[in-house]
Amino acid sequence: MSTPKTRLFLPLIYIVWSDDLLTADEFNILSRFIQKQSWLSEDERTFLESQLHLASPPSRIELNAWRAEIAQTVAVNPTLLSLFDLQLKVSQDHSLIAHQSAFEVLEQNLGILGAEALKLFTANKENQTYNYETNSTFDVPTLTAILDGSVANAINEVKEVISSKAFTYETSTDVTVYREKVLEWCRILAQRDLGNRAYPKEYGGGGNLAEYFAIMETLSFHDLSLVIKFGVQFGLWGMSINSLGTEKHFKKYLAKVGSLELPGCFAMTETNHGSNVKGLQTTATYNHATKTFLISTPTPKDQKEYIGNAANHGIMATVFAKLIIDDVDYGVNAFIVPIRAENGASLPNVTIGDCGLKMGLNGVDNGTLSFHNVEIPYDNMLDKFATIDENGAFSSPIPSDNRRFFTMLGTLVGGRIGIPRSALSGAKSGLAIAIRYGDQRRQFGPEGGSEIPILNYRMHQRRLFPPLAKAYALHFALRYLTQRFIDKKPEEMQEIEALAAGLKSYTTWFATATLQECREACGGKGYLSENRIDALKNDTDVYTTFEGDNTVLMQLVAKNRLSVFRKQVSDMNAMDKVSYVWNQTKVYLSEKNPFITRDTNEQHLLDPAFHINAFYYREHEIVTSAAKRLKKLIDSGLDPYDAFNVAQHQLIDVTKAYLERVVLEQFLDKIAATSDASAKAILTKLAQLFALSTMDENKAWYLENDYLTTVKTVAIRKTVNQLCWDIRPDAVALVDAFGIPESCLAAPISQKK
Amino acid sequence: MSTPKTRLFLPLIYIVWSDDLLTADEFNILSRFIQKQSWLSEDERTFLESQLHLASPPSRIELNAWRAEIAQTVAVNPTLLSLFDLQLKVSQDHSLIAHQSAFEVLEQNLGILGAEALKLFTANKENQTYNYETNSTFDVPTLTAILDGSVANAINEVKEVISSKAFTYETSTDVTVYREKVLEWCRILAQRDLGNRAYPKEYGGGGNLAEYFAIMETLSFHDLSLVIKFGVQFGLWGMSINSLGTEKHFKKYLAKVGSLELPGCFAMTETNHGSNVKGLQTTATYNHATKTFLISTPTPKDQKEYIGNAANHGIMATVFAKLIIDDVDYGVNAFIVPIRAENGASLPNVTIGDCGLKMGLNGVDNGTLSFHNVEIPYDNMLDKFATIDENGAFSSPIPSDNRRFFTMLGTLVGGRIGIPRSALSGAKSGLAIAIRYGDQRRQFGPEGGSEIPILNYRMHQRRLFPPLAKAYALHFALRYLTQRFIDKKPEEMQEIEALAAGLKSYTTWFATATLQECREACGGKGYLSENRIDALKNDTDVYTTFEGDNTVLMQLVAKNRLSVFRKQVSDMNAMDKVSYVWNQTKVYLSEKNPFITRDTNEQHLLDPAFHINAFYYREHEIVTSAAKRLKKLIDSGLDPYDAFNVAQHQLIDVTKAYLERVVLEQFLDKIAATSDASAKAILTKLAQLFALSTMDENKAWYLENDYLTTVKTVAIRKTVNQLCWDIRPDAVALVDAFGIPESCLAAPISQKK
Repeated sequence: MSTPKTRLFLPLIYIVWSDDLLTADEFNILSRFIQKQSWLSEDERTFLESQLHLASPPSRIELNAWRAEIAQTVAVNPTLLSLFDLQLKVSQDHSLIAHQSAFEVLEQNLGILGAEALKLFTANKENQTYNYETNSTFDVPTLTAILDGSVANAINEVKEVISSKAFTYETSTDVTVYREKVLEWCRILAQRDLGNRAYPKEYGGGGNLAEYFAIMETLSFHDLSLVIKFGVQFGLWGMSINSLGTEKHFKKYLAKVGSLELPGCFAMTETNHGSNVKGLQTTATYNHATKTFLISTPTPKDQKEYIGNAANHGIMATVFAKLIIDDVDYGVNAFIVPIRAENGASLPNVTIGDCGLKMGLNGVDNGTLSFHNVEIPYDNMLDKFATIDENGAFSSPIPSDNRRFFTMLGTLVGGRIGIPRSALSGAKSGLAIAIRYGDQRRQFGPEGGSEIPILNYRMHQRRLFPPLAKAYALHFALRYLTQRFIDKKPEEMQEIEALAAGLKSYTTWFATATLQECREACGGKGYLSENRIDALKNDTDVYTTFEGDNTVLMQLVAKNRLSVFRKQVSDMNAMDKVSYVWNQTKVYLSEKNPFITRDTNEQHLLDPAFHINAFYYREHEIVTSAAKRLKKLIDSGLDPYDAFNVAQHQLIDVTKAYLERVVLEQFLDKIAATSDASAKAILTKLAQLFALSTMDENKAWYLENDYLTTVKTVAIRKTVNQLCWDIRPDAVALVDAFGIPESCLAAPISQKK
Repeated sequence: MSTPKTRLFLPLIYIVWSDDLLTADEFNILSRFIQKQSWLSEDERTFLESQLHLASPPSRIELNAWRAEIAQTVAVNPTLLSLFDLQLKVSQDHSLIAHQSAFEVLEQNLGILGAEALKLFTANKENQTYNYETNSTFDVPTLTAILDGSVANAINEVKEVISSKAFTYETSTDVTVYREKVLEWCRILAQRDLGNRAYPKEYGGGGNLAEYFAIMETLSFHDLSLVIKFGVQFGLWGMSINSLGTEKHFKKYLAKVGSLELPGCFAMTETNHGSNVKGLQTTATYNHATKTFLISTPTPKDQKEYIGNAANHGIMATVFAKLIIDDVDYGVNAFIVPIRAENGASLPNVTIGDCGLKMGLNGVDNGTLSFHNVEIPYDNMLDKFATIDENGAFSSPIPSDNRRFFTMLGTLVGGRIGIPRSALSGAKSGLAIAIRYGDQRRQFGPEGGSEIPILNYRMHQRRLFPPLAKAYALHFALRYLTQRFIDKKPEEMQEIEALAAGLKSYTTWFATATLQECREACGGKGYLSENRIDALKNDTDVYTTFEGDNTVLMQLVAKNRLSVFRKQVSDMNAMDKVSYVWNQTKVYLSEKNPFITRDTNEQHLLDPAFHINAFYYREHEIVTSAAKRLKKLIDSGLDPYDAFNVAQHQLIDVTKAYLERVVLEQFLDKIAATSDASAKAILTKLAQLFALSTMDENKAWYLENDYLTTVKTVAIRKTVNQLCWDIRPDAVALVDAFGIPESCLAAPISQKK
């Protein structure tokens, strides 16, 4: 039975039979509706109800015929906007428009979104999501050159080596095979004079610290066990001699360390003392009669643990131990202790263990070391900061044991520069794999059209592009940190140490979170080892807790910031309300301009002056508030240790706000110094995305502090989404600009078509 | 030279030489200050300045003598509150109090926090942080019984098996060895009738679905490869027959599947179609003359991928393929296809690949399957939802191909219950390891005291206790979901499917994030494989993307919620402003009471009625706002596909708010039904922590929507910290109550003293 009135129901009947979101309920709703429509004849009602019996469904052929009929109507009426419009056209009786409002209520009762339902009948390929693709706006080599900067030669030198056949990835799951392969790779790097790059030229080195860090960073595009083994040998072991020793040590060891003739360890951490290294228990007891030290491990829990190069290859170790002279404890000092004979056997009184399988970095032979009165000569004390004089008395230019130890640690801060740079390379590799895959992988699509690259989906963009922007931001921030470290003056050391500790934490957490997103963004393919995200994730996972536990480091940095802040407060009294100046922009902190807290003008939202102001404001207010709170807690009689414990959560925020300000500032400075117009344009977009997505993450704080109003936080969120959308066509070129050798990236899913 | 006036400076001089946060600058500041003090004699000034020459530091002995003298003064004056108080006592000349304000300015210029500096001279062990330890308030077995509920017998049955010697963990890195061990474990479980627990009794099963899920959950305290292999065999393979087949299939296969005589696969995913399974390309072409189907893989990218049991052990597979009859495509249906001979060789025309190494789950033999016109008989079509009649014509009670396929998928939703329950067990294991370790591991401590359990640090509590509370909350929510699934009526299926898809996503993301925290909370020990967090992390990592990609599922749930919402809007018209009723509490949504948005009274903040109201409010407002936004976008002419893309981020929030409301509601219901007073008290604390930490995470949203004011968000943050502190003594008992067998937990760092 087909009348205009029954045809009016046809699209609805089709929908309840085919839409997989509708349930049995909807049949009842539609049935009841039909019963109530007095303008239908008895026959029409009976007929329509007969179409809605679950026990006697229409045939598949019948259903498809309905669909074809409706789709034909849609095809010849491309401007239909609502489901009722369509029903009317199908009925071919315009007078039925009188029932529009009744049907609109019905639609709502059925939970149908009319315009969406129309899609069931169209093959519309021409939507925006579908028609979006890679189309870069800038020259990739130009951007790579900006990223590489002055160390491009060293970077290219490393890339050439790690792209060679000898550096084909090891796929054996046998740890012994893997460890030997990593050692072999290190030997090749040593032969190419890449390991000793930072050592003084007079001792066979390259005298170039900037290149050393660039080498470490570039190696991190390859296997990360290699990077850590390399860092243990040439960084920790070699640099401990270089930083804590004196000429006699340089002469005797540095060349052999740099050539890998003398593999060694950096033995600081003990089982019972990881973060709190001031509490190390290993002892070095001096005997002036024999001019020797006895190195000793008091209890099993005081063994050195997680020591790289210890389990298999190390011949000597820099051992950190409490110096004891005549029963007096002079605090922790460093000593060179032989641990293994040339033939690989442990030396007498040295017990070497193997840490066994780890979550990652299984190409590194981490082990434990215990010493049972191991005798070493006088000359083996690394004596730059403390020595024993001819009378057997302790002597040091730094009288406080505590301060001396932290000064020693300060010279080793290079590890906290190498690690975040390595972590960032790992994150870049993950982003390159996930973004290239997202550009090619297609899934879902509009009805009737072919599938859409998943990188066109907004959520996928939101997962990958803010990290992409942050990777660029951190790249420049870590370069800045490196340069500060190279140019350091003594009075800057505390600031540089704090910055290194902070950026180490911030970057390694970033890498962990980013690689997690990348893994998930690649679905099952991201879980297969052949696509390398598993190795990147697992190898970098320990970065958040080694070279200093991130949570502990963040608190140390906060204490430094509080100390700086307290000094600043008095300096600033004269400065009225202008507290900082960035480039030519004065940064106003104290006044919250009601107009600005509500300004959602696009030009303003994208303005770097707005961003840097907001970042400075947050940094300043958080440190002020933390300082006041701590003072209040202590003034009220709380033990300071308890007070700091109560405020721990806030201290992490102090450091985060500080770091984010530094990172943004360095990014903006770099952009200001960029001359190539298209490179500058895309970097500007990335800086905007970094700034606004960081503000979006912290919007609760901005709202709580009345710096932003709701209308503005909403506008920021939308701008973040829009920036992600705008960056999409450039995304593949942006990861290409990282310049990761294809042989290193290696993932089949990252191969270009 | 020692005068009262020079002694007044002694503590400051000591501090600048010993504090490791002070720099060279401070020497200058102190020097300049001394020069300006006209009340000092020329000699005194000269003497004091001589103490501040970096080139001629005091000796270590001298420095220690100063410290001893100052500490002695502190010891006899225990009530000193400020650094200046101390200076005055050291000077022994009270008249110098006249200079107090000058010294306070100096302190600030030096960046010293006076009361904190005092700590340098005290050995105060008696602070709160130090004196806090495990001391549980409830009976552990009672709480375990509440968690286990009605399936305690099945749980204990499994625990007994997995605690036996045969279930010692496999430590070989050889994948072949590991896969065979996992198969052997599965055989033991099958022998114990643990695999067939859900199958109907008439086909040899246990007829108990609730126990099947409890078995899966409990097995997840052991090796997760075992769980997945078990789930593939008995869940996916067996339940596909049970849910999609008819009696002939049950008779022929179920007993053999349940005994593991017939290992099989669930072959749905293809390389090119993972999330969008509607687009599967494998074909099953029917030939009515021979009454057979030809199964075929059109192109290499259409191969079945990631298929568990395929690489080594599967004999047959349930293959999802488009049914083609006389060149007409009838949509995706399921077929039983033999793939391997008894001797393990692939059958003719079947190509089997191996997915190789994966990030985790390497005990599962995932593989690929390609079919080249593989002929199977008529009876091998799983024909519950569609069949081919005696004339060779297609026939189905569900005429829409789309709807039929999603109905089939709906019957398989059990996988989305088993996976989150397994994920939660993994998270519980991680929490048990990290919390027990945190209780025993000591690091840092007040000057002079011994070190403090790291679980006493507020940040450590903030990292581990909100996840602990959420683990409890999710436990009850997943039990609720399971019961709903067991009791399901057809009209509830969509709601249950949405809840399963949502809780699968929410729980697996929770497990991934929690295990990351646990890894970091255990530092280097957490990185060692012996402590098992690596396996827990890596094995569960794929849970976020298999059985449906979380991001895709969250959007599907949101679409369901939008559809429910649209129907609700009309239903609610009559309901005035009261929209929901929880227990006896009416939940008011529309009115924001200005008094309540500012109420920071503790009793109110801890009140479940406040929590559930806030959760309902957020759920309701977010779905309303998303619905309005979508309508506006589509009404403005945007293609609906684009409109949904623009709103993707918001759709995730719709689902999150819905799930969190359900989880809280179920937790509160469970607490209401708990009779043991001390169990009830600790569960109440956990529910408060879950509710408030969830609100704290979403505080930006509450601020943007004026549901909370700043004063209240700050009070909530403090209450979260306080609840963490309050829960600390119970934390170890709370993870003990999970009832994880010690042999399964296995981590050396989790062993109790």
